[in-house]
Amino acid sequence: MGEVADREAILDLLGVLAYGELSAFDRMTADARRAPDLLLRAGLAEIAAVEINHYVELAARIRELGGDPVAAMTPFVSAVDTFHRRTEPSTWGEVLVKIVVGDGLAADFYREVAAFVDQDTRHLVEHALADSELSAFAEAGIHALIAAEPSAAARLSLWGRRLVGEAISQTQQVAAERDALAGLIIGGRGGNGGLAGVAAMISRLTDRHLRRMTELGLSN
Amino acid sequence: MGEVADREAILDLLGVLAYGELSAFDRMTADARRAPDLLLRAGLAEIAAVEINHYVELAARIRELGGDPVAAMTPFVSAVDTFHRRTEPSTWGEVLVKIVVGDGLAADFYREVAAFVDQDTRHLVEHALADSELSAFAEAGIHALIAAEPSAAARLSLWGRRLVGEAISQTQQVAAERDALAGLIIGGRGGNGGLAGVAAMISRLTDRHLRRMTELGLSN
Repeated sequence: MGEVADREAILDLLGVLAYGELSAFDRMTADARRAPDLLLRAGLAEIAAVEINHYVELAARIRELGGDPVAAMTPFVSAVDTFHRRTEPSTWGEVLVKIVVGDGLAADFYREVAAFVDQDTRHLVEHALADSELSAFAEAGIHALIAAEPSAAARLSLWGRRLVGEAISQTQQVAAERDALAGLIIGGRGGNGGLAGVAAMISRLTDRHLRRMTELGLSN
Repeated sequence: MGEVADREAILDLLGVLAYGELSAFDRMTADARRAPDLLLRAGLAEIAAVEINHYVELAARIRELGGDPVAAMTPFVSAVDTFHRRTEPSTWGEVLVKIVVGDGLAADFYREVAAFVDQDTRHLVEHALADSELSAFAEAGIHALIAAEPSAAARLSLWGRRLVGEAISQTQQVAAERDALAGLIIGGRGGNGGLAGVAAMISRLTDRHLRRMTELGLSN
């Protein structure tokens, strides 16, 4: 376990997570209108509510640390919005895969950095992780969809690759611009090793993403 | 206090409230994109999350009573959707007034029927009422808006009248079609007095709406 990151890095981390939750909420509620029936629409709305509850907790922690949630989120608005603009789902299946992929990447990213943050922040992050079980809803929907239409699997596999590619590209962008956050990602070692450390983390996240896709039957 | 309504009427009531919350959630999250800054956008998202938490509780109560949430909501989808389609806000001020008006009408309607439902349902309804304090967020926004631009008050007053007019029109439609719910509204008396009882309730709701608009400085 590395040394605990400084306040600036923690605020960066909380800021990017908070804006990630806020925009995931926004997108999911827009996507809910693509749901094929009222039951699925309501299910997706419930998941979206979990995201916003995480947002509330993250914003409260930012205030506890003497930060301002809006100021903490602002540096990450452009990268997160770009990710969503480039990955707008056009079918219900794409909505579901985006939930599983996004939720999985976020949870893995949380785990990567949890060791380097103070204890209160870590508890908050672990709580957010625990709720991520909700992507079970989306997984069940994907299984049902592929069972009904096996040819959908190939299209959704491609979609999964595109999602992770865009996520990586935006993460690299953010890491290059935010030294404090990049330092936290590589465990506070800083220096020239920073970008290499970020690349190693991205490689671990990608491995876990591929494993999840295989489990979903979206492996090729 | 009237006699406790029958199961069919309670399921109708829970169904219309549940779909009301679900669609309020949908609309608010769409409206959040009109927020002038990230702080207000996040504030609106938090309010929307409260609506969806109410939805979850109402759906759980429907299941407890042996009903199915989707079946209970379906008869009310058309009326509620028509209301929202006809009252789509085009400015941030209209978004805020719609929250206050909608929240106020919903809370008053809850109070009207609470006396006639079983105790568990009443507790649930009272809990939903307590959270409605969140419209304080919207009220503060309206006050700030009118202070900055006094001429906005006249336009928003008109908007408030249009909202309540559309709400009344859809409520009458629903009451005419759903005998069980209409019976509950008038306290289980039923018979020919039904529509007159509904009209009397609408008149009380309108009075309280006008009082709220006056308090907001939107009185003419």
